[in-house]
Amino acid sequence: MNIKIMIRIQGWILLLETIFMLPALLIAVVTKDRPATLGFLGAMAIALTCALGMAFYSRNADRKFYAREGLVCTGVAWIVLSAIGALPFFISGRIPNYVDAFFEIVSGFTTTGASILPDVEVMGKAILYWRSFSHWVGGMGVLVFFLAIIPANGRSNAYMLHILRAESPGPSVSKMVPRMRETAAILYIIYCALTVADIVFLLIGKMPVFDAFCIAFGTAGTGGFGVLNSSCGAYTPFAQNVTTVFMLLFGVNFSIYYLLLMRRFFDAFRDEELRMYLTIVAFAILVITINVFHKTVDTQHLGETVRHAAFQVASIITTTGYSTVDFDLWPTLSKGILLCLMFVGASAGSTGGGIKVSRILLLLKNIRRNARQIFHPYEVQIIRMNGQRVAEQTMTNVSGYLAAYVIIVIVSFLLLSADRANFSITTNFSSVMATFNNIGPGYEAVGPTSNYAAYSNFSKIVMSIDMLLGRLEIFPIIAIFSPSTFRRR
Amino acid sequence: MNIKIMIRIQGWILLLETIFMLPALLIAVVTKDRPATLGFLGAMAIALTCALGMAFYSRNADRKFYAREGLVCTGVAWIVLSAIGALPFFISGRIPNYVDAFFEIVSGFTTTGASILPDVEVMGKAILYWRSFSHWVGGMGVLVFFLAIIPANGRSNAYMLHILRAESPGPSVSKMVPRMRETAAILYIIYCALTVADIVFLLIGKMPVFDAFCIAFGTAGTGGFGVLNSSCGAYTPFAQNVTTVFMLLFGVNFSIYYLLLMRRFFDAFRDEELRMYLTIVAFAILVITINVFHKTVDTQHLGETVRHAAFQVASIITTTGYSTVDFDLWPTLSKGILLCLMFVGASAGSTGGGIKVSRILLLLKNIRRNARQIFHPYEVQIIRMNGQRVAEQTMTNVSGYLAAYVIIVIVSFLLLSADRANFSITTNFSSVMATFNNIGPGYEAVGPTSNYAAYSNFSKIVMSIDMLLGRLEIFPIIAIFSPSTFRRR
Repeated sequence: MNIKIMIRIQGWILLLETIFMLPALLIAVVTKDRPATLGFLGAMAIALTCALGMAFYSRNADRKFYAREGLVCTGVAWIVLSAIGALPFFISGRIPNYVDAFFEIVSGFTTTGASILPDVEVMGKAILYWRSFSHWVGGMGVLVFFLAIIPANGRSNAYMLHILRAESPGPSVSKMVPRMRETAAILYIIYCALTVADIVFLLIGKMPVFDAFCIAFGTAGTGGFGVLNSSCGAYTPFAQNVTTVFMLLFGVNFSIYYLLLMRRFFDAFRDEELRMYLTIVAFAILVITINVFHKTVDTQHLGETVRHAAFQVASIITTTGYSTVDFDLWPTLSKGILLCLMFVGASAGSTGGGIKVSRILLLLKNIRRNARQIFHPYEVQIIRMNGQRVAEQTMTNVSGYLAAYVIIVIVSFLLLSADRANFSITTNFSSVMATFNNIGPGYEAVGPTSNYAAYSNFSKIVMSIDMLLGRLEIFPIIAIFSPSTFRRR
Repeated sequence: MNIKIMIRIQGWILLLETIFMLPALLIAVVTKDRPATLGFLGAMAIALTCALGMAFYSRNADRKFYAREGLVCTGVAWIVLSAIGALPFFISGRIPNYVDAFFEIVSGFTTTGASILPDVEVMGKAILYWRSFSHWVGGMGVLVFFLAIIPANGRSNAYMLHILRAESPGPSVSKMVPRMRETAAILYIIYCALTVADIVFLLIGKMPVFDAFCIAFGTAGTGGFGVLNSSCGAYTPFAQNVTTVFMLLFGVNFSIYYLLLMRRFFDAFRDEELRMYLTIVAFAILVITINVFHKTVDTQHLGETVRHAAFQVASIITTTGYSTVDFDLWPTLSKGILLCLMFVGASAGSTGGGIKVSRILLLLKNIRRNARQIFHPYEVQIIRMNGQRVAEQTMTNVSGYLAAYVIIVIVSFLLLSADRANFSITTNFSSVMATFNNIGPGYEAVGPTSNYAAYSNFSKIVMSIDMLLGRLEIFPIIAIFSPSTFRRR
């Protein structure tokens, strides 16, 4: 392991985080929120000190950087980012327990949106801004951001691919352009443009300016932290519909937008993942609308039911986690569909979490191949995606991912089951699903109107790790704890 | 597809089923149970008529028999067996709804043990005997039985391997001896010997003779139908402990017993699956004992807690489904552990269901390989089991199996969620787990003291298919519905 280069990158990440905190500090000063001002100043001071120390220590790092370094570096960066990012909550005293503060910011950076706060409205604008902005930073990835802005040279080119691969969700990174730095920059340009468009539409929908920024950050990162206790329930129907559309847009693979920009419309619309994603969304909205409308026909108009169904489906499949109604009160079928959407997740290469539609697609193709192989043992079966042959290594990785996914769900579920709060099976299982898939709300004791505060510190740490495992797709976090990481070559 | 040979085998299976019904008919006559006598006579008449018709139709079948024939033949045989096996319940009027009767006998043959009967004690001995005996037949497999008794010749050798592979659980069939017929015979000899031993020990434990036979059948097949409404709660502690031990014994890969018979003790005890199976059992008993004892310290002795914990763990991991207490009342951690054991299941090559310990072991090894591959992209990683290299095709099959398993759980869960009974998520999810893994009882509305009667006919058919998918490990049932089955070559 090349420790020095990794510490060097951590130093850069901390410097970036300090800069990211500036707007929040400004809001704290403007709103005369003394504890928050103190919180941000303290956090920034600590971050800067660490960053300087790291830069000094790693001043003569060499450029050796392999896949393992990329994984460990990404995993460590996210933990460091969270450890420092929790400080404003903690120092300001708004979240007096550091584990709670850590849970909250991990939930932010991983774009989960699970909260331990029973009342967000008393937090003050600066703290709320930081919570929501963490979604925006985490959505596309802080290391990808770092890659997008650093000057390209031999040293940085060496680690760009490994980091991009480790931080971007999905079974394979689609290089839009041959050079990594440009790919990272294109990703962030599309991301910024969509975020700005979202803010503009929300403002047209009569949302207050502060709310529009925060909700747009949460939508862009598919996070889910709101600034009101009712999440998005209090906004105008227009603003809710805008959010539905933008959640769905941020759940699409960003390389589709690049194809559209390149005017390759045909390639974009024949994309198998996109078509499956839209099919699942349409089908889920249809079934939930019928199911919910059937049970609440006296109280709601059909249009209203469709709006709520679409909002909740978009929110869950993109793993955002906003809500306009308490879907825990919906009939079992609708709740069941949402639970399955949690598992599916958004598209690869989007800001959403979950297993990802393309992985589900590959798994389905693998089942079909497997069945064929059993029926016709002497034929060779090939898997294709968008007309191209899928490498066997990709299939192995996808299968390994599913296996690791299942094992992590089981182990986390067992660990939460030992919690002193003694929640029901549904609560514990949906907590694991909601944190590991980076969604936010679950069912029953962690439903949309509730929060995660009642869990013990131990369970909160388990769920924090689950959120990181989910966001970074398991292996960067496993890499940190792998014994081979500490072995010298 | 060679239709004639398949119909020929179905004819044989129906003849066998007629013979299997004889003892039940005898009991019905002796106990002067007129409706049951009528039920068995009617079922036997129908079965014999069909068998004769099939034998006549297929009198000149040729011997072409490939993997696909083996799969379809096994899948169809189990459905035919169940359709006829349900008739005694239906004709006798003890289960007036045919779908219920079908669910009950599928639950029997697949060794699930899920029941729609709120009160089993009023059923009469003949019906109860048939229910329990169906476990014994289904445990080792009726086709394997057929293979064990038919005379070996060129024609039968051709299809033996394909059928044995389709009906025996686990990622690969271990041929104990080169000839298939002998392997099948050895399996049944071990199976009979263990069953007899179980009956003898239960009689020593002061269990009534009728109960001892029925409980032993249910234990041997890892089924779970009891003859008392309290399942095994009313028997002596000694009889309960005997059942615990024998459930665990029937959850072991039968090739281990063959190794023991061959005095290859070292090979038997170094078996990785056996060691993992015993480790999981011991660990689960330990944690549940501590967890339950902690909460019920006033009312129970430690010995009693250990007995109940061991019984329930053995019952669930082997997917038997007997109970001595209502484990739905246990604390969340214990319930969570049992839910995970449902998923793990027993050993490959045993009579138990679930994913199987060896598949879990291979999946864990695959995750480790996958992680290594990501850290060291240029090294070739090999998976070994019991010191031998595992074929890549086996790994692909195991991964495909897990993917199919997850998809089936999700689809079944969604279908049950649409049930008019509108059960909770926990009920529906545990119903799927309990039927698909061939266990029997689930949680809440389908807990150990409850039953599946409240589900709609549609849901009962879904769960019947799940039970068959679980017992035959998915692909034989998929093969029936695969379009290529009906295509002519």
